[in-house]
Order: sequence, then C-alpha cells, then structure tokens
Amino acid sequence: MAKYTIGIDFGTESGRAVLVDVADGREVATAVHPYRDGVIDEVLPESDIRLPPDFALQNPADYIDVLRVTIPELLRESGVKPEEVIGVGTDFTACTMLPIDEAGTPLCLKPEWRRNPYAWVKIWKHHAAQPEANRLNAIARERGEKWLARYGGKISSEWLFPKIWETLNKAPEVYYAAHRYIEAADWIVLQLTGQERRNSCTAGYKAIWSKREGYPSDDFFAALDPRLRHVVDEKLSRQIYPLGQRAGGLTREMAELTGLLPGTAVPVGNVDAHVSVPAVTVVEPGRMVIIMGTSNCHMLLGTEEKMVEGMCGVVEDGIIPGYFGFEAGQSCVGDHFAWFVEHCVPAAYEEEARRRGITVHQLLEEKAARQRPGEHGLLALDWWNGNRSILVDVDLTGMLVGATLATKPEDIYRALIEATAYGTRVIIEAFETSGVGVNEIVACGGLPERNRLLMQIYADVTGREIRVGATPQAGAFGSAMFAAVAAGKAAGGYDSIFEAAQRMARLKEVVYRPDPIRHEIYDRLYAEYRILHDYFGRGANDVMKRLKALQKEVLAGRERIPPSAT
Amino acid sequence: MAKYTIGIDFGTESGRAVLVDVADGREVATAVHPYRDGVIDEVLPESDIRLPPDFALQNPADYIDVLRVTIPELLRESGVKPEEVIGVGTDFTACTMLPIDEAGTPLCLKPEWRRNPYAWVKIWKHHAAQPEANRLNAIARERGEKWLARYGGKISSEWLFPKIWETLNKAPEVYYAAHRYIEAADWIVLQLTGQERRNSCTAGYKAIWSKREGYPSDDFFAALDPRLRHVVDEKLSRQIYPLGQRAGGLTREMAELTGLLPGTAVPVGNVDAHVSVPAVTVVEPGRMVIIMGTSNCHMLLGTEEKMVEGMCGVVEDGIIPGYFGFEAGQSCVGDHFAWFVEHCVPAAYEEEARRRGITVHQLLEEKAARQRPGEHGLLALDWWNGNRSILVDVDLTGMLVGATLATKPEDIYRALIEATAYGTRVIIEAFETSGVGVNEIVACGGLPERNRLLMQIYADVTGREIRVGATPQAGAFGSAMFAAVAAGKAAGGYDSIFEAAQRMARLKEVVYRPDPIRHEIYDRLYAEYRILHDYFGRGANDVMKRLKALQKEVLAGRERIPPSAT
Repeated sequence: MAKYTIGIDFGTESGRAVLVDVADGREVATAVHPYRDGVIDEVLPESDIRLPPDFALQNPADYIDVLRVTIPELLRESGVKPEEVIGVGTDFTACTMLPIDEAGTPLCLKPEWRRNPYAWVKIWKHHAAQPEANRLNAIARERGEKWLARYGGKISSEWLFPKIWETLNKAPEVYYAAHRYIEAADWIVLQLTGQERRNSCTAGYKAIWSKREGYPSDDFFAALDPRLRHVVDEKLSRQIYPLGQRAGGLTREMAELTGLLPGTAVPVGNVDAHVSVPAVTVVEPGRMVIIMGTSNCHMLLGTEEKMVEGMCGVVEDGIIPGYFGFEAGQSCVGDHFAWFVEHCVPAAYEEEARRRGITVHQLLEEKAARQRPGEHGLLALDWWNGNRSILVDVDLTGMLVGATLATKPEDIYRALIEATAYGTRVIIEAFETSGVGVNEIVACGGLPERNRLLMQIYADVTGREIRVGATPQAGAFGSAMFAAVAAGKAAGGYDSIFEAAQRMARLKEVVYRPDPIRHEIYDRLYAEYRILHDYFGRGANDVMKRLKALQKEVLAGRERIPPSAT
Repeated sequence: MAKYTIGIDFGTESGRAVLVDVADGREVATAVHPYRDGVIDEVLPESDIRLPPDFALQNPADYIDVLRVTIPELLRESGVKPEEVIGVGTDFTACTMLPIDEAGTPLCLKPEWRRNPYAWVKIWKHHAAQPEANRLNAIARERGEKWLARYGGKISSEWLFPKIWETLNKAPEVYYAAHRYIEAADWIVLQLTGQERRNSCTAGYKAIWSKREGYPSDDFFAALDPRLRHVVDEKLSRQIYPLGQRAGGLTREMAELTGLLPGTAVPVGNVDAHVSVPAVTVVEPGRMVIIMGTSNCHMLLGTEEKMVEGMCGVVEDGIIPGYFGFEAGQSCVGDHFAWFVEHCVPAAYEEEARRRGITVHQLLEEKAARQRPGEHGLLALDWWNGNRSILVDVDLTGMLVGATLATKPEDIYRALIEATAYGTRVIIEAFETSGVGVNEIVACGGLPERNRLLMQIYADVTGREIRVGATPQAGAFGSAMFAAVAAGKAAGGYDSIFEAAQRMARLKEVVYRPDPIRHEIYDRLYAEYRILHDYFGRGANDVMKRLKALQKEVLAGRERIPPSAT
C-alpha cells in the first residue's frame, strides 16, 4: 500500500496544502484556501473598531477552516484513503503569536475579548511594537547580553517579546487574562493533537531561546519591566521540542473535521522558510537556500555557532537537527520589481506587452537580458523597504546612481535586479567572513519559477552555481516531509529528515552557472556597490534617515506648512 | 510716424523673427522659418557622406532663407512699411562657427568643399572637439594661463579654438583653405551689411578674448600646435566691437532680399541667451536672469571682474556695455522632465491625463503641487546630462535617493524639479561667495510659461522673488531692442540699451515669492543636496565616472562579453 503525507503551509493570506507520495515525493494533489478575514489591518471583523497604525492581525478561526476545507479536498481530488495518510505536518509564518486560555482557546474567539485588538493573533508583519523593540535592544546592549550577538545584534519588532510587551503596555488586561502566549505554529499543533509541543525553530529564531542557554534571564526581563520578570514561566514554556519530532496523534475531533484517521502522526510546528530547506534537498552545510519572493530569506547550515553580522539568527537544531541553522534576509526583492512595473513603466511598454501577449515583467526581462553587465551604466541600492541583512535598518531607503537622458526602463529594471543580487552577495560574504562557507545556492519560491534573467544575474554576481527546487511550494512540501519523519519508518515514513530529503526532495534540471567574463565585470560593479552600501548604510552620510525623519515631521505638521500650489 | 525694429533669433532648428514697436515694445508681428537642413548630424545634405560621432552641423544657406522668408512675412502681416523699420538686429546660438573665403562665402557653399564635413558650420552642440579641449585645458593649466580663471577653470569643447584645432587636426586642407573663421553671429551681420564687425559677446565668451587683455598669447597657441601660433592674426581678427554698436546699414542686395530699405541700421551680432537679458528689463547688477528651457542659462551683471567657480565665463561688455557679464548654466532642466515623462510615467497616468484633456506634465504638476517640501522623502542630483556649473563635468550622472515602495511618479517628478532648483542655488551661492550679489531672479524661456510649480519651487529653494519676462521670445525681442540702439535716437530709436530697456522691455505681473516656512524646510534639504553634490561631484567617490567608463568599455567589447540571456 502506498503511503502519503500531507503538508500544510499557513501563509499570510491563505493556507496551501499538498498531498505527497512518501516513497518518491510525487505531489499527488494540492489545495488552497484563502483566509476569510485575510490580514486584518484596518477594522476588527464584524465590528466598527478601527486598528492603530502598523497593526496586522489574523483570525485563528481561519486556520481551522484551512484544515476543514483543504484536507478533505486533497483526499477527494487524489482518491487517497485516510488510512494511506500516515502524517500531517504544518508550517507557519512567524513570529505570528496569540494569547490563549487554559484550554488553548484563543482569547479573541471568546465573546468577552472579541472587541479588543490585542486579544487577536499578531502576525509577523505587525509592526506596532517598534518602541518596545527599541527599548529591548537598548537595555540588552547596556547589560551586555551575550545572546544579542546570535541575532546579528538586534531583536526585531516582529518578534515575540516586543509583541508581548506591547500588549502589556497597551492592554495589560489582555496580558493578565492570557493563560499563555503561543506561536500560531505551535497553536495549530496543539489543536491537531491536544499537545502543547513548542518547536525549537520559532523558540530559537523568534523567542531568544537556545538549546544550550535557554531564554534570557529573569533579571533581563525584569530590567525591561518588573511585570515581565517571570514572563517565560508565567506565559510561555521552557519545554522545547526539536523539529521532526512527533508532537502527537490527530485527536478524534480533528479526525472528524479533516476526514483523516485519529492518531495520524503530527510533527511539531515549523516555519515556512525553514521547512523549505530540506524540501529543496538541503540537509548539510555549504549550500545556501534562498527563498525568493516579495522578499528573500537566506538559510544556511553550519556545524558551529558563529556570529555573523546582521543575520536574523543562528539556532541550534533550528532548521535541521544536529546543525546550527543560520537565517538572513533581504526585505525587498519581488516587491521591488512589482513597484517598478506599477509606477515607472510607460504606456508604450504596457501596449507592447499586451500586443505580444506577455506580461510587462516578461517584456522588461527580455529587453534587459540582451544587455551585458555594466552596459546601462546604473547602480542601485536595493533598500526600497529598508535593509534586513546585514545592516538591520528599516530606515534605509532606495538609491539609484548613473542615470542619464539615455536611461531606459529596462535599464532601471535590470539595475534593481542586480542590486538585490549584490545584496545577496553581501550576505554570503558576511557568512564566509565569519567562517560559514557558501559553495552553492539552491533557490525556491515564486521568482525562480518566473524570471530566468534574475537567476542568471544572481549566478554571475555571486560567482556560484544556482539550482532550483523542484516543488513550486517548498513550504507545504517540507511539512509533508517532516510529517513522514514524525510517522517514522515503521509506519511507512522515515526515521530522519536526511532520509526523507534523499527520497522525497528533488531539484529541477536547470543549473544557472556563472559566466567568468560577466562575473569579472560584476566584481567591479559589486566593489562600487560596497562603497555606496557602507557610505549610506554605516553612518558616513545618514541622509536617508534624515530624509525619512523630515518626511515624518512634515506630514505631522501639514497644517502649518502651505502646499506649493499657489 | 511710428517706428519699428525687427529682431531675428537664429536658433538650433529655426529662425524666429519679431517686429516691435520701438516706442513701447509692443510685438506687432512674429514669423518663424525652420531650417531646411535642420541640425545635420548623420549625413551631409545631398550626399552619401556619413558624419563621425558627435558632429552637429548646419547649412548657412538656411540662415539666408530665414531673412528672405521671415522679414517679408513680418511686413506683410503687420502692414508696416519698409521706411517705418529703422533697424534689424540678430542673435545666434554660439559658439556656432564656420570657415569663409576672402569674399565671406562659406567654404561649404563652394562646390569644391561641399563634400567635406569640416567645411560646414559647426554648431554649438558639435562635440567632436573634446580631445582638443582636453589638451587645451591641460596645456593652459600647465602654463598657468591666467585667463583660464575667467572661464571657471575650463574651456569647453563647444567653443571656438577647440573647434578650429579639431579641423586643423582632422582636415588641415580646410583649415588652410579658410581665409578666416567667423562666428555665425558675425557672419550674418557681414551678410547684412557687407561689414565684418566681430562682436564682444562671442569673442569674450567663446574665443577667450577680453577687452583689457585681448586673446591668449601667440606662445600659448604655439604650445598647442606650432601651426596655430598665428591663428588669431591669420584666421580671426583683433578688431572687436561692443554690443549695441551699429555694424552698418543694410546692403542693396539684402534690401532686395528682405524688402527693407538699403541702409537700415544693423547692430553687431549677439548671442541668444545674452540678448535676452535686457529683453526682460535687466540692465543692472543684482538681478539674475535665468533662461529656462531644455537647459538653464544664468546671466548676471557685475561692476568688477570676479572669478566665480564653474562659471561659463565673465566678459566685460559681454551682455550690457559698461558691466562685466557673467554666465553660468545647468545642462539638464526641461530635458529632465521630458525624459521622465517619456520613460517613467505609467499608463494609468497617461490615461488620466488624456481623459481630463491635460498633458502628463500638467497632471504630474497638479499632483506634485499638493505636496509640502520634504513630504516625498526624496532627493536627487540633477546631473542626467552632466553638470555645467559649478562642477563643469560632463561625466557626472543622475542620482536619486530616498525611494521606498510608497514612492509615486509625482514624487520623483517633484524631486527632479527640486534638484534643478538646488542646482541653481549652488550657482547663486558661488556668485555670492565671489562677491557678485543676486537679489532677485527674472526668468524667461519656455518653462516659466508652462510650469508654475517649478517657478514656486525655485522661489522657495533660492529664497528669492522671481519675476517673469513679458515676451515669450526674449531672444528676438532683445535683438529688436539692440536694433533700436543701432538706429539711434535721431532715427527714432534710442541712444543706449538702458533707454531701450526702460521703454521697450516689460515683466509679467505675476511674482513668485518664497514662503518662509517652505524655504526653511528647503534649507535643510539643500544642505543634504550639498553634501551629496560634493561627495559625488568633487572626487570623494568617483563612482559616476567609473560607471560611465565601464559602460564604454563594455560597449566597446560587446563581442567578447556574452549577454545575460541564456
């Protein structure tokens, strides 16, 4: 009897599920279910309660709907029987967190808390905890907290403790009413199995936990706020489980909801980017995985804990058990090109694309692909949405130099692609400088499927071969792999993620190889990029920050300042 | 009997003529005639002879056609009788120069030279003499030539001696066959009057002549090339005439050609930008005239010779007799906005403009005008076409900083306008630093007619009131004023340009006044502009030049470098 597992990737707007043949990784069926309430950033559902700026919430009931809708759909579509499904794994965006009561019920699903925004799920891109993050970082630096270096020297406002502290400051009643705070990645596992099994990935990357040193000390939390002294013991848990471990079996209720058998193996939760690594065959050091979409995530394994400038984090067992998992990122990649196509491409190009039945992206790619490196004379800094790695600075902005009256749209488009490739090379060099080698790149995500020019430029700029993962949905696929590991060999799965990767994961045949001549030219352009990167990014000229500050000041004082119209 | 004068402005693509009432400056009639051969930059007319790169020639027969067509048209249209026209004045682009024979006939109009590109008129934007200009500047610096400072430290490739030297190097037969070299501004006067009366404006600004010191020494020319030792005496003339002076009376042939009376007063030639100064009422120090079009020309009068960084030149009697005339410039103004609208504005904007029956420029202006300074968060360096003043560097390029995913087309449009305003402020400050005051600005040219936002931004950035000349064609109008001076009071004209300016020239009623709050914000933005101006423009980071050099190298080696398309 063939064995199958299901992987479910809980994204920002929808859940995406895949049913995979455990023997060879064949994707038998897929299903997608959009969240009814999507990202809640203006008004609380079924209410007139307007949210403060920078809020981004979700409704946890939407996650249950994904299970209820997609799993039966997979079974129906594939004809696979419930007894053939040996495991169901999940991955989530992170840090996406919520307060729950003793029974695990989200506070926001209880009538008494429904109208309080702080009772809802704060998703990864909820940015209202920046003041708390700033204070946390200042206090950590002041106290010389050693763990800070594991996070590139800065804790993001997107992570767990700033988000908890924000609630304590703004809505202490929610904080005190919460029995526990939990990552959505762990909450969904709690729902599936009835077991609270907090995973080492979100704990390590988002909650400042490490396998060897645990959480920051109670003294540190007390230094933030005396009320937070016992936050770990009161609101979290010190019990953390490694990736791939079986969290439990499907409960009877969940079996009824999904159509699967009770007891079906469920692994501990995981994060979308991290679970993608084995999904594209990478279970060893030296091969960097880049998940390329609206932004880039760079994932890398190492055998030792190293401090790498600007990395998002290094976590033992954080990606693959037995290795240190490193994460870095670029905040603006696909978003860059989307912005450009929406705002900066003339009607003549849109018409040409329409006439030829291709997208504007394809038209620009075609025109830009005819060029040689350096031909357009431009250089950009890819900071339209700040810089995550290695400068960790959201107040940096985009820059373009070299424009002339002969500059054409495809020139700028190509310069933006190149800028993101230079940004990736900066990250690679930061790893290598710290002794974490990068010999090859494996790409996955939406961009590698769509833009061959981009892939070739990344190969030419980084001087490294790039391969592309076979699955178009690395997150859900990786979750299906971990489900096979949770099921174990005895049940028809695998005993380790290494084995699962060998049997289930695959790469596409295409290989993007750096051309030595183009690489040599890009070396020279990259040297220019580094000079400007450091000039604008490391304090020599903080003009980007001053322009942003002035912009805020002007917008705040609009009434006082007459517009230029006369 | 009313008295009239005619002014004719010989431009780049056409000649533009105006008939003016001497008493009050009323423009009675206008006429335009495009040059049949236009700018010749690919193939010599009626031949298969392809031109080298950077060539820009004209056919002097086209100038005569302008006289033949426009003057009769003015008379016909206005009903003014030839005896009522007391003078006809001209102005020209410069340095626009040609070789002539003993009779004043352009070599290119003689069959034996017709097929030699070097025998034709080289117009101002002929750029093939850059190597000669570079060597001339190096040798002048080496020799410590004092006159170099009068030209901001650099002689342009557009000017007379590089162009003559280029011919000597590339086509010595033309150089030796030429009886003389002459500015087109002086050649047209020679045609009108039979008199060679070289004017002080082109001699001063384009031929390194000064009233007090004459031309550079023969030794200097010999240092360039022994064959050039006597270039002034052999090919030019040391006899230079001040502006406004009567060059002579219309010849019988020209009277027949134009329908005017023989003997009608003709002043010495002039240059389009310079003749515009009195045309907009400016005949005294302290009021800077900016001719705003595809590029900006800044004209200013002073009572002493001062050395101003990056000015194009200072010439005694070069604009208004009795004053030192200063000139500076920006290479890319209207061109900037035209480039942006052509290449960077999305279809949605073009549609909105079409629907509302306005131009895309108007739409962008309207959207940008609602903003406050600093609101878009952007800052640009206005060097899309190099920097004329004060850095005098054609290899500088455009830069934009501060872009985010929220940046909209009108934001960039406004940032480009502001950048050109900052560039003008740099020029004003260079003058003031050198002791040449600028209290007020008077604008003319195409842009002030069309773009109120631009005018207001210039006022807010510079902190100075801006007025606008009443005439839409300041060049031709100024020539008509000088014609009235050449005719003299006895004939119904004026005895001086001061008197002519008082009676004939006018300003529009509109005044653009700086708003103190906006000016204060622009002070802060301008400080940022200066930092970047010096960083990119003064050698701290020559990335712009390196990108341009790499671009040339790549284009030259295209065959060797594979394009990125795979």
